[in-house]
This record gives sequence, C-alpha cells and structure tokens, in this order.
Amino acid sequence: MTSTWYLSEKTDESQILSSRVRLARNIKKYPFRQMLSKDSAEKLIRETLSAVLNERTALNSLYRSINMSEFNETEQKVFVEKHIVSPAFVKDAYPRGLLLKDDENVSIMINEEDHIRIQTIMPGDGLSDTYELASRMDDLLEESVEYAFDKEYGYLTSCPTNTGTGLRASYMIHLPALEKTGHLKGILPAIGKFGIALRGLYGEGTESLGGIYQISNQLTLGKSEIDIVASLQNVTKFVIDREKALREKLMNQHRLEVENNIHRAYGILSYSKKMTAKEAMDLLSEVRLGYQTGLLDLPKPNKRIYQIMMEIQPGHLQRMAGQELSEQGRDAMRAEYLRNVFR
Amino acid sequence: MTSTWYLSEKTDESQILSSRVRLARNIKKYPFRQMLSKDSAEKLIRETLSAVLNERTALNSLYRSINMSEFNETEQKVFVEKHIVSPAFVKDAYPRGLLLKDDENVSIMINEEDHIRIQTIMPGDGLSDTYELASRMDDLLEESVEYAFDKEYGYLTSCPTNTGTGLRASYMIHLPALEKTGHLKGILPAIGKFGIALRGLYGEGTESLGGIYQISNQLTLGKSEIDIVASLQNVTKFVIDREKALREKLMNQHRLEVENNIHRAYGILSYSKKMTAKEAMDLLSEVRLGYQTGLLDLPKPNKRIYQIMMEIQPGHLQRMAGQELSEQGRDAMRAEYLRNVFR
Repeated sequence: MTSTWYLSEKTDESQILSSRVRLARNIKKYPFRQMLSKDSAEKLIRETLSAVLNERTALNSLYRSINMSEFNETEQKVFVEKHIVSPAFVKDAYPRGLLLKDDENVSIMINEEDHIRIQTIMPGDGLSDTYELASRMDDLLEESVEYAFDKEYGYLTSCPTNTGTGLRASYMIHLPALEKTGHLKGILPAIGKFGIALRGLYGEGTESLGGIYQISNQLTLGKSEIDIVASLQNVTKFVIDREKALREKLMNQHRLEVENNIHRAYGILSYSKKMTAKEAMDLLSEVRLGYQTGLLDLPKPNKRIYQIMMEIQPGHLQRMAGQELSEQGRDAMRAEYLRNVFR
Repeated sequence: MTSTWYLSEKTDESQILSSRVRLARNIKKYPFRQMLSKDSAEKLIRETLSAVLNERTALNSLYRSINMSEFNETEQKVFVEKHIVSPAFVKDAYPRGLLLKDDENVSIMINEEDHIRIQTIMPGDGLSDTYELASRMDDLLEESVEYAFDKEYGYLTSCPTNTGTGLRASYMIHLPALEKTGHLKGILPAIGKFGIALRGLYGEGTESLGGIYQISNQLTLGKSEIDIVASLQNVTKFVIDREKALREKLMNQHRLEVENNIHRAYGILSYSKKMTAKEAMDLLSEVRLGYQTGLLDLPKPNKRIYQIMMEIQPGHLQRMAGQELSEQGRDAMRAEYLRNVFR
C-alpha cells in the first residue's frame, strides 16, 4: 500500500504544512444540489461512480469508492480531521459519494455543495504540483461526464462565489510568532486586498488552533487558474517572510523566554495525564517552532508534528480507543497518546 | 567527613521533613543582648568559644568555630537556607559566633537574640531524639559557662516569651492537600488553643512555599520540656491525620486531576529553561506528593526532594554559580539545576 501523504517529513520542514487544491464541478444533466431530490442524488452518485470507475478509465486501479453512510460518526470525523472531506460533507444524511486515492492525496466528493469536488493535497510547499494533479483528475473525470460550463462565466457552481475556475487553492501554514505577538490581525487587511483570506484549521468558520491557519484565494472568477495559484504563492511568501522576521526578533530579544516556553511544552506533552485538544495544539505549536528554530535539541517524537496534530483530534482518538469517548475520556486518551509519542 | 543530616532519605519518607529543637540560653555575667556593647559581645564570643572548645571538653573534636564576618552575603544566605542559623543572625554587623557540628545537625549561635542558642535538627520524625541531643549539648555547655537561671521562672531570656524552658520544638511538615483545598486556615484556631503555631519555611514572618510549614510550640513557661515536646507531637499527629485524610479524599474523588498535576510538575521540572523559587517549590511539592501517594512511578531525581528544595534557594544557587546572580540569572540557574537533577 502506498504511504499516505501526511507521513512525509515535508509536513514538518517549513512554515507550510500542506498545499491543497479544490475544484468545484457540476454535471450538466442534473440540477444543482439545492434542487436535487434524494433519489436523483443517489442516481447521480451511481452514474458518476460507474462512469469513472470502469475498466476503460485510468482511475479504476488506484481509487476506492466509499459509501459514507456505511461509516459511523467516529469514522466520518476521522475523514474530516484528515481533510479528506469537508465538515459539511458529513453533516446531514443527504446521499454522498466519495472516491479516495490510496495515498489519500486525491479525494473526490460527490454531492457536497457541488456535484463534484475534486481535492488534491500534498505535504509541504508544492502548490503547483498539487494544482497539476487536480487538473489531471479533472481531465480524467471529464472523459466520462459532461460538466456544466458556460463560455462566458466558466464552470457553473451551486454557489456563485465558486463560479469561474471553481478553484480554491490553499496552504496550511504555521504562524506562531505572528499569532503570539498579535501581529496577525494587522496583516489581514493587506492580504485581503489580493483576494486572499486566512481561515481556521478546518476552513471557513472554524477556529485556528496551535497557530495553524489555512490561507486561500477568495476569488475564482475573472482570473486564470495559473494566476490564482501564483497570487496565493506570492501573498503566502509575504506572510511567511513576516513570520520569519518576527521569529528572528523574538529569538534575539526574548530568547530565554521563547526557549523556556518551548522546552516546557515538550515536558508537559511528555508527562501529562489529561489534555484538551486546544492545549495540545498550542504545545505542539511550541515544539514545532522549537525544532524549526533549532532552539529544541531534544529527541523528536516518533511521528511528524502534523500527523500528531491530526491524531489528537476527537475522531482519531475514538477510533484508537475503539469506542465513543466522553470529553474526559478523550482528554486522558490524548495525553496517553502524546506520552507514547514523546517518550 | 560525616554525611550531613539532610542527605538522609528520612527527609522524604513522611509528611515530616525534619525535627528541630532550639534552646535559648544566656550567660549570667553578661547583660542581655539589648544592653551588650559590641566590645562585650566580642569578649563573650571569645570567652564562650575558648571555654567550650578546649582539650578538656567533649565538644572540641566534632565542632568547628565559624566567624560569620569572614563569609560573604551569599555564604551567609547558604547558612540560613540550611537552617543552620536564623535569618536574624546574619542581618546586621553585630558580633556573632557560631559553632557547627560536622554533620550540621547541631549549631550553636552566639549573640543571636540570646547569648547562646543551641539548635539541633534531625531528618524526618525524630523529635524526642532531637530534644535529647539538644539537652546533651546544653549540659556540656553548662560545664563551662554559668547560665542566667531563676528558680521560679527558669532560664532567663532576652525576650520574655522564651523565658522558662527556653525551648522551641518544631517540625517541618509538608501539607499540600490541606493547603490546596484551603482547609489549612480552618485548623489554625484549633491548634492555637494548644499553644502551637504554623509558620512559613524560614520561621516567623516568612511565607510558606511548596506547602511546607514549620509547626512549633509558642509557650515555653509553665510546662516541662517533656510536656512541650509531647504536646507538639500530639498536635502534629492531628494535623498530619487531617492531611492524610484529605489526600485520600482527593485521590478517590479527583484522582486523574491530582495525577495530572503531579506528572506535569515532573515534566516541567525536567525541561524548563527558567523558573522562580516559588514555582519550583510548588512543583517539587507536587512531585513529593506523587512519590508518597504512589501516583508517580517515574524515576526519582538523584537527590532528596528536601535537599533540592534547599539547593534551589538564592544563596545555594549563587554559591553554585560562584558569583552574584541577578533574579533572571538565578531563574535560569535554578532551571538548569533542576533539569540536571531530574533527567
């Protein structure tokens, strides 16, 4: 089996944890999601899957079709926490289909907000490759289904904000220095002018944890895909340069303070008996900063920080425990997991 | 060289860290300290030392005479932190003499508040032995000097509160559960009725740190030495029984909480880069509680908790560093010392 993308050490190397691309597409012969009956939705899934997964298509061997309704709540949470599907995708009982590639770097959601959402994700800084992969998937799908497309507007989507390229490109970035010093708010208007937004860990409306943010384009219309990707790359570079400058400043002016926080975080992660997800994310953020700045010379945990951040989320913990857990139960389980990973 | 008393593991075994006895004595032919000129004070020291330390006396071989004025401020602080002398003893430039036994369990202060203060100290719970040792020292001294003594009142002292037996017996006790739960205040009036008081780590007017208190008799007149010691033993047993009951209750009702605090304390002590004395004492208190309750099964530090609590004080740290240290410097040094002791 192919190793999943998030096991790569690239997720820990820079301020960028992962690069992600999402393409919103709709099938011409079906009404948009808002007008689609459940029966038609089921039919759409069946048709799309059989069109895509058959002996003639290149997708057949690498992808598995997943029926979300066969998974319990915990397993659905795991999909969300891995960023394979959106939180909205598992929220109600509407018929949904999912195609997932072996190494989990391509997922295709059927009947999310749009009929089809192609998502590609790669470790670290690799947005151009990630876009190319999504684009290839898009071409392969188009061999089997006819998209709703308008010569003037481009790809038509359920929500007009996605019409045009249907592209959302995003990085997951780690900005502990900008967050801690309160300088993050100051740069939001500047990046907003370029049609770029910062969001929380799980996208729109979710909170940021451990200094981790999604930075992504807001505009999909009137710009080419290449321009959207390039613009996000430039703005992200600007944000990361600010983060680096602030880290430098913190290390020069408050080195012992920073070092102390980082080392204490390591100690607390290594020995706690209970911990909330929020605290764990904050401490992991310190440790990640420690390794990147070289201030932390203690043995690395036996997993990537990114992977740890994912596996301490409720769904992953419950899957690990093999049962539903209360909040207290999760806090204890999380601490146990962290002790094992750090010691 | 004899090992000092505080290296004994008895200091870590129970709620009682050490047992201490102090006898206040004055020499008949000199006026009390308040009326004693500096010249006479010098003469008193010379005479007392030569009377006590000569070939005829049993004290000669085991004791060394220490001239406090030869020590700098740091070294004087170390004596206070070891409880060899009182804070008052090193406060001004008045002539002072000190006799110290090899293993530091007997010290005789000359020209503290009284002409002579005999102090004996032993690890753990051993107040009767400690009193016997002080009493033996008292007898030996009396072979060489004539005490101010009144048939009706007993030993006469500079401050009337010490007149009578001149005895203060005390335990250093660790009461983390009583302190944390706020129940300590509730028992103070009860023990006050028996003429017993709780004080901070370095006696009257000093604050308690890390849940450690001195419990001692207030009355020295109208009771025999044996009664004073027995009364302190009884009241201390009462206090410790309350502490034990509360620990039991905490462990039954909030086990994970308690365990979590203890283990986090261990982690923070093992990894910090700076730490105040107050925080260190609080964390050491948690760890001490952890070993005593069995909740902490991690490797013990390579020194006794009691010794660590002493060696993280400013004087000890400065002596270790071989120089005066700023507060920031001490906080960094303290953290380094703790990392070495715990890892």
